[in-house]
Amino acid sequence: SKHGDVYILDVSPERFRVAEEISARLCSLDELSDMDIVIISVPIERTSEVIREVAPRMKKGSLLADLTSLKEFPVSEMLKFSSEDVSVIGMHPLFGPFTPVKHQTVIITPGRDPHGYLSLLEEILHEEGARIIIMSPEEHDRLMAVVQCLSHFSLVSFGLALRKLGFKPSHQILPPVYSILFDMVGRILHQNPEMYGEIQKNPYASEVRRAFLESVMELKEAAERSEFSRVMRESASHFEDTAASFFRSEKLIRCRIREIEEIESLLGSEIVLRNMRTSETVRGKLVEFEENVLRVEVNGEVVELSLDEHELVKRN
Amino acid sequence: SKHGDVYILDVSPERFRVAEEISARLCSLDELSDMDIVIISVPIERTSEVIREVAPRMKKGSLLADLTSLKEFPVSEMLKFSSEDVSVIGMHPLFGPFTPVKHQTVIITPGRDPHGYLSLLEEILHEEGARIIIMSPEEHDRLMAVVQCLSHFSLVSFGLALRKLGFKPSHQILPPVYSILFDMVGRILHQNPEMYGEIQKNPYASEVRRAFLESVMELKEAAERSEFSRVMRESASHFEDTAASFFRSEKLIRCRIREIEEIESLLGSEIVLRNMRTSETVRGKLVEFEENVLRVEVNGEVVELSLDEHELVKRN
Repeated sequence: SKHGDVYILDVSPERFRVAEEISARLCSLDELSDMDIVIISVPIERTSEVIREVAPRMKKGSLLADLTSLKEFPVSEMLKFSSEDVSVIGMHPLFGPFTPVKHQTVIITPGRDPHGYLSLLEEILHEEGARIIIMSPEEHDRLMAVVQCLSHFSLVSFGLALRKLGFKPSHQILPPVYSILFDMVGRILHQNPEMYGEIQKNPYASEVRRAFLESVMELKEAAERSEFSRVMRESASHFEDTAASFFRSEKLIRCRIREIEEIESLLGSEIVLRNMRTSETVRGKLVEFEENVLRVEVNGEVVELSLDEHELVKRN
Repeated sequence: SKHGDVYILDVSPERFRVAEEISARLCSLDELSDMDIVIISVPIERTSEVIREVAPRMKKGSLLADLTSLKEFPVSEMLKFSSEDVSVIGMHPLFGPFTPVKHQTVIITPGRDPHGYLSLLEEILHEEGARIIIMSPEEHDRLMAVVQCLSHFSLVSFGLALRKLGFKPSHQILPPVYSILFDMVGRILHQNPEMYGEIQKNPYASEVRRAFLESVMELKEAAERSEFSRVMRESASHFEDTAASFFRSEKLIRCRIREIEEIESLLGSEIVLRNMRTSETVRGKLVEFEENVLRVEVNGEVVELSLDEHELVKRN
């Protein structure tokens, strides 16, 4: 990296491949005391353990940071187990590994910073086009209890209800708005359950889950008394700018429609598709497009590709 | 219309404007007995009343149809209050008034059809590029109890929980996936509460709301016993193709990113924006783009436009 050498310390067998991919070197636990900056990025449930190993080895004038989805406990433990002369800064990038950093948000929760590392981090993230928000670890965890825990909790509840009802979502029959919601449910259910279980351990999540349960009970009673609309109106008045949400979601719906129209307009032409699962590209002539299946002629042979997992990269 | 003359019978003061817009004529209740096809499209809570007025006036050999979001009660009442010699067909277009018909789904629930009107409806919808699904009124209502009622119920519950928690969603701080979910909540809350209250009166909705409440209670207990991940895994195994949902939602996220990138690339150029609220277009030079605000120079004056309610129609 232009900011210095990057080292990886990891137990995963993937570490060799990843190190090569990002031109980093591997290092050992003993070498940590040579490092200027150490960023901890491990599963939430291993965070405390790793901090206790790493923090005491940090040299004077260095920076200890982490990328955990919770911030109160990692920052307080980094502060506790490192010397006063070590800077401690928590970070939470609010986006997944598949999303480019540009325009995305990183929350920074400074612990102590005698050496002014915060401005270096800000500078690096700024160069990458990220949006930086600075708050306290507690503010972060309270915010994420609503943003992450309530979102995950409500979507997994939705998925569980589908299971209880024995309902299989068929994407083809779902109208656009509903298909987006069902995809949000499927997306959450596609993630690592252990990680999402750990995120629910946010100290403020229990209060949020209780508020959601109370809301469901209240709305259910209201619906049975034909007062659903009253509760809906009250919720809307709290939410405030529902019109902006409406228009933004209209754009999403049109996005799906536009994708289909674009593909239809390319029938008979040479196209390039990218498999989102493997990142491999396929180039060939689009001979047929029906429901969700693209039939593409590649070297004289017709292959069937699902639109769900392919995106159009280029027309010829 | 190329299929015949269109008449409007309505009490709304809008009827004159609408009739002119779609080149239709107005008609009176007495004239219904001259009509070949009557399609009832009124608020759910007025449907029964209107059917009782209209159905007995239908002439022999005609078609009585409706567009209500529920199908069992309107179809059974249309059958009951019209003569045996009148065709009765229920329809439910699964999309809103802002979405073009092409590629969208219309559910058709035939009641009785001695005159073969079903194939005419299919032909007209087919010409418009709609996808047609035929099922019984009961199947329709059972399906919609999950698709519509569960979706609305869970999203309004989410909105109510935000109110209980005193949380104001700030679009700028929400990561992409969460912003899509919060927009789904805002979108629902932007709709007519009376209509959504009526949709919750679906005869199978009560069972669906109960399943959702049970799911929330079960998942809450699981989360408190650190077993959130187990329930999440079980829900995922029922949902099955979570990967397809994941990739489809990735495309939505990229869509939002692409919009921003496209606008950034147009800084300094002439652009055309459409206001999604009013359908008016604005043409001018894009001089600045910051967070959510577009500054466009129109005839020497700079106007501020929100990206939320404008879409890019054309670059120059």
